[in-house]
Amino acid sequence: MKPFGHGGDIYAFAHPVLDFSASLNPLGLPEGVRKAIRSVADAPCHYPDPFCRELVGEIAQCEQIPKEWVLCSNGAADFIYRLVWAVKPERALLLSPCFSEYEAALRTVGAKLLYHSLLWEESFILTPRVLSDLTPELDCIFLCNPNNPTGLPVDPELLLQILRQARRAGILVVLDECFVDLLDDPGSYTAKAWLSEFPNLILLKAFTKTYAMAGLRLGYGLCSDRGLMQKIQQCGQPWPVSSVAQAAGVAALSDPEYLEKSRRVLQIERKFLKSGLAQCGFSVWDSKANYIFFQAWRGLREALLQKHILIRCCGDYRGLDDSFYRVAVRLHPDNQQLLSVLQERRDFHEWGQ
Amino acid sequence: MKPFGHGGDIYAFAHPVLDFSASLNPLGLPEGVRKAIRSVADAPCHYPDPFCRELVGEIAQCEQIPKEWVLCSNGAADFIYRLVWAVKPERALLLSPCFSEYEAALRTVGAKLLYHSLLWEESFILTPRVLSDLTPELDCIFLCNPNNPTGLPVDPELLLQILRQARRAGILVVLDECFVDLLDDPGSYTAKAWLSEFPNLILLKAFTKTYAMAGLRLGYGLCSDRGLMQKIQQCGQPWPVSSVAQAAGVAALSDPEYLEKSRRVLQIERKFLKSGLAQCGFSVWDSKANYIFFQAWRGLREALLQKHILIRCCGDYRGLDDSFYRVAVRLHPDNQQLLSVLQERRDFHEWGQ
Repeated sequence: MKPFGHGGDIYAFAHPVLDFSASLNPLGLPEGVRKAIRSVADAPCHYPDPFCRELVGEIAQCEQIPKEWVLCSNGAADFIYRLVWAVKPERALLLSPCFSEYEAALRTVGAKLLYHSLLWEESFILTPRVLSDLTPELDCIFLCNPNNPTGLPVDPELLLQILRQARRAGILVVLDECFVDLLDDPGSYTAKAWLSEFPNLILLKAFTKTYAMAGLRLGYGLCSDRGLMQKIQQCGQPWPVSSVAQAAGVAALSDPEYLEKSRRVLQIERKFLKSGLAQCGFSVWDSKANYIFFQAWRGLREALLQKHILIRCCGDYRGLDDSFYRVAVRLHPDNQQLLSVLQERRDFHEWGQ
Repeated sequence: MKPFGHGGDIYAFAHPVLDFSASLNPLGLPEGVRKAIRSVADAPCHYPDPFCRELVGEIAQCEQIPKEWVLCSNGAADFIYRLVWAVKPERALLLSPCFSEYEAALRTVGAKLLYHSLLWEESFILTPRVLSDLTPELDCIFLCNPNNPTGLPVDPELLLQILRQARRAGILVVLDECFVDLLDDPGSYTAKAWLSEFPNLILLKAFTKTYAMAGLRLGYGLCSDRGLMQKIQQCGQPWPVSSVAQAAGVAALSDPEYLEKSRRVLQIERKFLKSGLAQCGFSVWDSKANYIFFQAWRGLREALLQKHILIRCCGDYRGLDDSFYRVAVRLHPDNQQLLSVLQERRDFHEWGQ
């Protein structure tokens, strides 16, 4: 079995771990979602609604867009594969470093992959350099906002320039906003308002991170090109979203306070964790997301595992090496525990080198 | 929205319906499965195990095969699409009539589709005629045992001939056994014992029907060609199976009495429903499955819908027309209710014509 290329595989260890490797909302499942899961346990058995009618209606209302622009999937990752199968791009542009599933999905259709490198010397920020890579030979570009693993958002002005140039060049822009709702100010960063103007824009979103629903598998895509959305739907099975996930999604959307509280907690804990990591002497980037990207020394993941703490080593991200890491922002006691372990300097030398 | 091409879409109606259109185990979710769902509601939030390690172990033990031959999916339908994308067949042979998702999946890779017609005059039974269609130009054949919608199993001797000839001709045999465990005697029909001898054989199975877990989405494939299985795994997202489905699957397999009881109930009710439908003057085929295939008059589905009963009209199956139907075998009171409505002859004339 080759090593798993993502965080969150806590099942690989014989003992329980404190998981900083998966970037989920630290508040955990909203209480309404837990109730919804229990209600499915008591319900009669049916196939799930293949069209997720109720859930799509709720998402459309919540996102304030027409429901014809919404397509639900078995997590956002499922949407990525369906999309790639529907479009079958011949040439695609990817950022490096970035979430690896875009690349994995594109490889299954034999797409030629081009890379736009985010540079250490530019603090891994996306700059107007990317515009010169948006040539008409391209079929699509995948962006992640805020980016994974850096947590850095894309400047909205630049995003608009990208969308305009992509539209002229006939390039589909797939914009992964799975982490956008946990930013302090999602409204300043989401491209949702541009969906109508840009039918070449597809947004990816997920309940996975926002509502800590990773175990239930629920994501969705948004796009104003209804023909394309229909094609994406047909490139996969008719019942991608379980009844449990549909009920849980509806419940999650009915609790706006949960998100507000999440952002308040994350704002405080992000700052706490960033400053703590910097005090350890690590290079810490200015993440705006619910996870933090930093550079330390090789072997830190293994060293922390001995203390039953799991962090994400970013060595398998294109353009990074084993000295880069990503940690989720968790609740205060967990963050405190991570920092305490890291700050035990003396111990460090013994188990870290 | 085009009409949905399967049974079980009870959500399309404004009122509740008694659903005979989806062929699920009439006993409903095993109690252990309901418990497992509730336990996930109370558990902390994590990504699901991407490799379904515990569940795969249980399936392997239950099926008495090596665990390396098992790959779990988001329902069997998910496996069909992954498989098709991994193999990308250029020419595929399908039976007609048969479950339509094989065809839908094959169309997404642009495969050339050939059809072997099951004939009315041969009672829709698969005969050795099929052997002459297994030419080396073919990449794969999809079979369903027992067949959907007819409920007729494939003669094991013929199946072995098909496997041998397919192996010689380099043809992959995809054998859908999603309904096999609800036959009176699954052991006489499953091709499981031939997996080792035929690496060109893939079996599809599902918890969907067997354990009435359609809403949870859980299926799996079995194949002794590990290279192919790895490729199938890579042709889709890393977390196809939710934590709920994994826990539910493990719970389902720990309750063998449930299946024995299911078969006892189905044996009695299948007979009752078949004879009742025949007494209505319909042509009823000799289904061995948990659903019954019959021919009546056009409009029967709509007529029954007025009585809030949903049956599967088979007019969208290749090779059939709107006079063919499939009904699930349900528990006695439900079957009795269907037959009572059908037997109200006088009323029939009023609402059926």
